[in-house]
Amino acid sequence: MNAIKELSGGLENVALFKYSAIECGIRYQNRLDLSLIYSHEPCWAAGAFTTNKLCAAPVILCRERIKNPIHAILINATNANAATGQQGLENARLLTKELGKLLSIPEDSILMASTGIIGVQLPVEKMKNGLPVLVKNLTSQAGALLPKAIMTTDTFPKQYAISFNTSTGTYTMAGIAKGAGMIAPNMATLLCFVVTDFPVQQSVLQKLFYESVNVSLNAITIDGDMSTNDTAIILSPARNLSHTEDDIAIFSKALHIMMKKLAYLIVSDAEGATKCVTVKVVHAANDADAKKAAKAIAESLLVKTAMFGNDPNWGRIACAAGYSGAELQEEKLSIYFDDIPLFKNGLPVEYDKELLLNILKKREYTITVDFGLGNSQFEFLTSDLSYDYVKINAEYST
Amino acid sequence: MNAIKELSGGLENVALFKYSAIECGIRYQNRLDLSLIYSHEPCWAAGAFTTNKLCAAPVILCRERIKNPIHAILINATNANAATGQQGLENARLLTKELGKLLSIPEDSILMASTGIIGVQLPVEKMKNGLPVLVKNLTSQAGALLPKAIMTTDTFPKQYAISFNTSTGTYTMAGIAKGAGMIAPNMATLLCFVVTDFPVQQSVLQKLFYESVNVSLNAITIDGDMSTNDTAIILSPARNLSHTEDDIAIFSKALHIMMKKLAYLIVSDAEGATKCVTVKVVHAANDADAKKAAKAIAESLLVKTAMFGNDPNWGRIACAAGYSGAELQEEKLSIYFDDIPLFKNGLPVEYDKELLLNILKKREYTITVDFGLGNSQFEFLTSDLSYDYVKINAEYST
Repeated sequence: MNAIKELSGGLENVALFKYSAIECGIRYQNRLDLSLIYSHEPCWAAGAFTTNKLCAAPVILCRERIKNPIHAILINATNANAATGQQGLENARLLTKELGKLLSIPEDSILMASTGIIGVQLPVEKMKNGLPVLVKNLTSQAGALLPKAIMTTDTFPKQYAISFNTSTGTYTMAGIAKGAGMIAPNMATLLCFVVTDFPVQQSVLQKLFYESVNVSLNAITIDGDMSTNDTAIILSPARNLSHTEDDIAIFSKALHIMMKKLAYLIVSDAEGATKCVTVKVVHAANDADAKKAAKAIAESLLVKTAMFGNDPNWGRIACAAGYSGAELQEEKLSIYFDDIPLFKNGLPVEYDKELLLNILKKREYTITVDFGLGNSQFEFLTSDLSYDYVKINAEYST
Repeated sequence: MNAIKELSGGLENVALFKYSAIECGIRYQNRLDLSLIYSHEPCWAAGAFTTNKLCAAPVILCRERIKNPIHAILINATNANAATGQQGLENARLLTKELGKLLSIPEDSILMASTGIIGVQLPVEKMKNGLPVLVKNLTSQAGALLPKAIMTTDTFPKQYAISFNTSTGTYTMAGIAKGAGMIAPNMATLLCFVVTDFPVQQSVLQKLFYESVNVSLNAITIDGDMSTNDTAIILSPARNLSHTEDDIAIFSKALHIMMKKLAYLIVSDAEGATKCVTVKVVHAANDADAKKAAKAIAESLLVKTAMFGNDPNWGRIACAAGYSGAELQEEKLSIYFDDIPLFKNGLPVEYDKELLLNILKKREYTITVDFGLGNSQFEFLTSDLSYDYVKINAEYST
């Protein structure tokens, strides 16, 4: 019996929450740009935020409030409210205050997330005027609108939903994300929101969320840049319910599946990308080395352009492993494309060119780098670097 | 009176040394691929080598021998002798041993440097057969051949020569380099060789060379990848001559000018690049922060694609400063393109769009990022990221 099941659709599967998205005209007309996730019941929240020292006003707000009982997340697209100084922070506070009044909840039970152009103040009056409609439209079914409402240059909306069985019953979990396409208007923003009706205490929720983010959202790379607005938040009802260890293990597994799926969807939609490649480091000397090496290889421009060109360039891969800082012994290093070895114990090996080309031409394959030193492994998901990446990012005009 | 003067030409200006370059057919016919720098008089040498843990056989050899009295550097293009295991190292030793016999010098007074395809053993017999011709052709005038003989995908040969006056007379210094174009056949290799007739003791030479490499070759970025073969070497005659402090200061200044010029030539010839932009961080909290921030901005793909697109994207620059790890206070951060401010004390400012476009369209300009915190500064030289970069690196076939 499988305890975890994929569901069709997204947020609407978690009916404990209500959702709403409207066209507020923040920067453009006729596009959904203001969204709300709301729970009548207070929730425990956990978050992972950008480590950029230049962080947007809504991120500052979230950091202040994440440990409070949370009722709502207000999300806007098309304006990042970043590099907006004190005024930007006051605007974010004002909007959550107004929303608190309308929902009859404390303003500090409301989180906020923004994505879009930076250096421009939010059109506060317009957004304030939109809030009553946003609140009025709240329904569980409207969850289907949100993955679209948070998009910037994503080419498709990203959502995922699952159910899982524990000793106290069947629960649901759903998430939405927008891509680190690194783009328009100004830079990458990764937004990700997950809701569940399974109650998990804040401290445990934070720990489990971090663990899953580390192997999902923190294990993908498009271009190595990190936005001022990156935000991932999970909400879970603040109910005291005792769980068995197995229950927590199932929840944790479900959360990993959720986050890995959303991370996969983000890389699949990377700007200009034609591939979604897993870089898997195995037998590294330690965990930190495994991660360092996988990251260096996954971020190497030379490796990424080779992927785009269907070139089995093990030299560039070995080179990136070498400068990653991870412990490395040349005579123990091996490299595989799917199951075909190209480099074994420090020396190139002959391979079947046709079989290899079949792998390289696939949209998805795995590059395995075996350090032959220890027992640590780590996987990174990466995209290739194409003409279109340059085009998209060069032709945007500030 | 200016103590330092630019000379036309390159290595041939330093007649203390003899040079030779031949078509040895290492990988291709009809191209100069084997070169020699030779001094009858023993020299002090100093070097800076790749920190990649996967390093090529010639780099291992140089590290062993760099503190010896040095007579010669043997250089080959088209084969990197990297990822070639124990055999590769034995081949390098064998070639320097043969060369030592021909020149009647100890084999461990010979350094070696290689660039080209990786994972392929050197054609040792062919190269051994080339050595007598290489030695026979040694002249000072042949120095003009070397910048061409070490090229891989560089589009022009890179050389520079200067003279400088000290209390003991007039001396010359000349250098050649090949580019970190990061390319064909397999990856970037930066090679750089400098000779001078000014005698500087090994320990002092090593210190001064490091200092100049840190602000030149270590302060440029094309794509952030680091080769297995990167090698920079300076040779100076091993004569005991006392210098005044001023003499050493002039030599050090000359060396800085030399290395910065060679670094500039390398970035000017970056693969597919249309720009050569200086990223200057000023008023950082400390020296390490200034370097970190300049590097992060200079390496950001989003910043580099914006340069290519003539987009004054201060947001991407501020963002990279934010994730660089350098101390940053948003309300003190300012950004200039040449002398035009776009962002002052944490907020965007109005600017003359036409004046700015004139700057952005230039091949060379300076982005200044003022942290407003301390007194440290650092400059990085970077190129833009163009369609052609992707093309060159995607279309190469291993």
